[in-house]
Amino acid sequence: MNRASLFEQIQKKKSFLCVGLDTDIKKIPSHLLDTEDPVFEFNKAIIDATKEFAVAYKPNIAFYESLGAEGWKSLEKTLNYIPKEIFTIADAKRGDIGNTSGLYARAFFENMSFDSVTVAPYMGEDSVTPFLGYDNKWVILLGLTSNQGSFDFQHCDLGKNEALWQRVLKKGKEWGTEDNMMYVVGATRADMLKKVREIIPDHFLLVPGVGAQGGSLQKVAEAGMNDHCGLLVNSSRGIIYASNGEDFADKAAEAAQTLQKEMAEYLEKYL
Amino acid sequence: MNRASLFEQIQKKKSFLCVGLDTDIKKIPSHLLDTEDPVFEFNKAIIDATKEFAVAYKPNIAFYESLGAEGWKSLEKTLNYIPKEIFTIADAKRGDIGNTSGLYARAFFENMSFDSVTVAPYMGEDSVTPFLGYDNKWVILLGLTSNQGSFDFQHCDLGKNEALWQRVLKKGKEWGTEDNMMYVVGATRADMLKKVREIIPDHFLLVPGVGAQGGSLQKVAEAGMNDHCGLLVNSSRGIIYASNGEDFADKAAEAAQTLQKEMAEYLEKYL
Repeated sequence: MNRASLFEQIQKKKSFLCVGLDTDIKKIPSHLLDTEDPVFEFNKAIIDATKEFAVAYKPNIAFYESLGAEGWKSLEKTLNYIPKEIFTIADAKRGDIGNTSGLYARAFFENMSFDSVTVAPYMGEDSVTPFLGYDNKWVILLGLTSNQGSFDFQHCDLGKNEALWQRVLKKGKEWGTEDNMMYVVGATRADMLKKVREIIPDHFLLVPGVGAQGGSLQKVAEAGMNDHCGLLVNSSRGIIYASNGEDFADKAAEAAQTLQKEMAEYLEKYL
Repeated sequence: MNRASLFEQIQKKKSFLCVGLDTDIKKIPSHLLDTEDPVFEFNKAIIDATKEFAVAYKPNIAFYESLGAEGWKSLEKTLNYIPKEIFTIADAKRGDIGNTSGLYARAFFENMSFDSVTVAPYMGEDSVTPFLGYDNKWVILLGLTSNQGSFDFQHCDLGKNEALWQRVLKKGKEWGTEDNMMYVVGATRADMLKKVREIIPDHFLLVPGVGAQGGSLQKVAEAGMNDHCGLLVNSSRGIIYASNGEDFADKAAEAAQTLQKEMAEYLEKYL
């Protein structure tokens, strides 16, 4: 999917919501456990309930991988079930030497047909560029994450008022463009979004951490929005586990709609 | 597997060779392509041919993942085929927020039963520690890699003569011990092994890049060996693709034995 189509979706749905499909077999409502593929059945119901409010879905690959080959099948079925006009993110945080990254790209862009994959930057340019060789596919590079561990390395001072995460943003900008690269920027650092936008004014940001991880949507929208919106804000547990009863899909729809309505306001105000 | 058992294997086989199972369906000898699971048949033959000379096997997960659910099955079968006394490494370079890293640990340590998994450090402590909560299982943390891209971030100067990769080694040492953590250190930086050993004298190092990536085994052994050997030196393509004909397994055995003999010398000399 290209940037224009993504922006079109955002305008049409008045939403920049990404729903994180962090589907844990241990948390699925019990009435689904008798079906042939509970993970897929759960995702299918979540997608049906939220697709009106979401512009992106982000399966967290770890949840599927933890189930082995069966999990991988559930993932493939889930991806195929997502409506084609909705942006898809393989949240995989891959990254390895060039030929190996090329195979991860094959996994997510050819064997499956995700629009984007999250990539870890530690191994540098040749670990990232193999993902950039596909038309209308995207790298979402880890910039600044919202977990406690982000302070261990990402905030390391490289001198001249530059932290490692800022160097990562700058380098990534040399490797890709605003048409094939996005960045993960944690919402709990909303005060740092201004610094982010100084380096990458035009790129899309994938912002996790609204909801369970505790960021403020309003602050993110105010500081982070650009003329193409430039934001995909993710919510996972707050939506998909809004209820663990038979009404889980209805409650997920409500939670997604609540966020979408708030997003519509901010699009009106800041776009 | 614990450190003592690994060292016992090394002494018994006079080898610190790790064979990288970077099995690419596109490079498998053509006579295997008619079998039901060519990737597994290839690995099985390679394991049979090299197990006498190797103390570890390292499937590169990207190669399996690029084939989807089928690849995952080949991986599971391969892992189950490796003799129990040989150390196994899931070369996956995973790393995510705590609960997600916990699921990757479940994938490689519970659903499958690898002895270790390679982990990327960018997201810091809580992305690494979930892998450390298993008895006799190991994290192999990316320290200094051998690719060109390592210069983008790993060599960033943090002041006081410290590069990012050195900070990673130090932090990792706080999180784990020499009994549950190893480090990836690229062999093409053999001149830097002395600096590595100043920080982590007792930890095992996984050294890729001998052979196709061009490091010198002798230099690595001289600068890197400690009183438990402390080295696993990986060779992938140089062994598994030593021939692409029907004699591929024989040629793999020869290539592995050549390295093992050289290693026996260095164990004699430097241990």
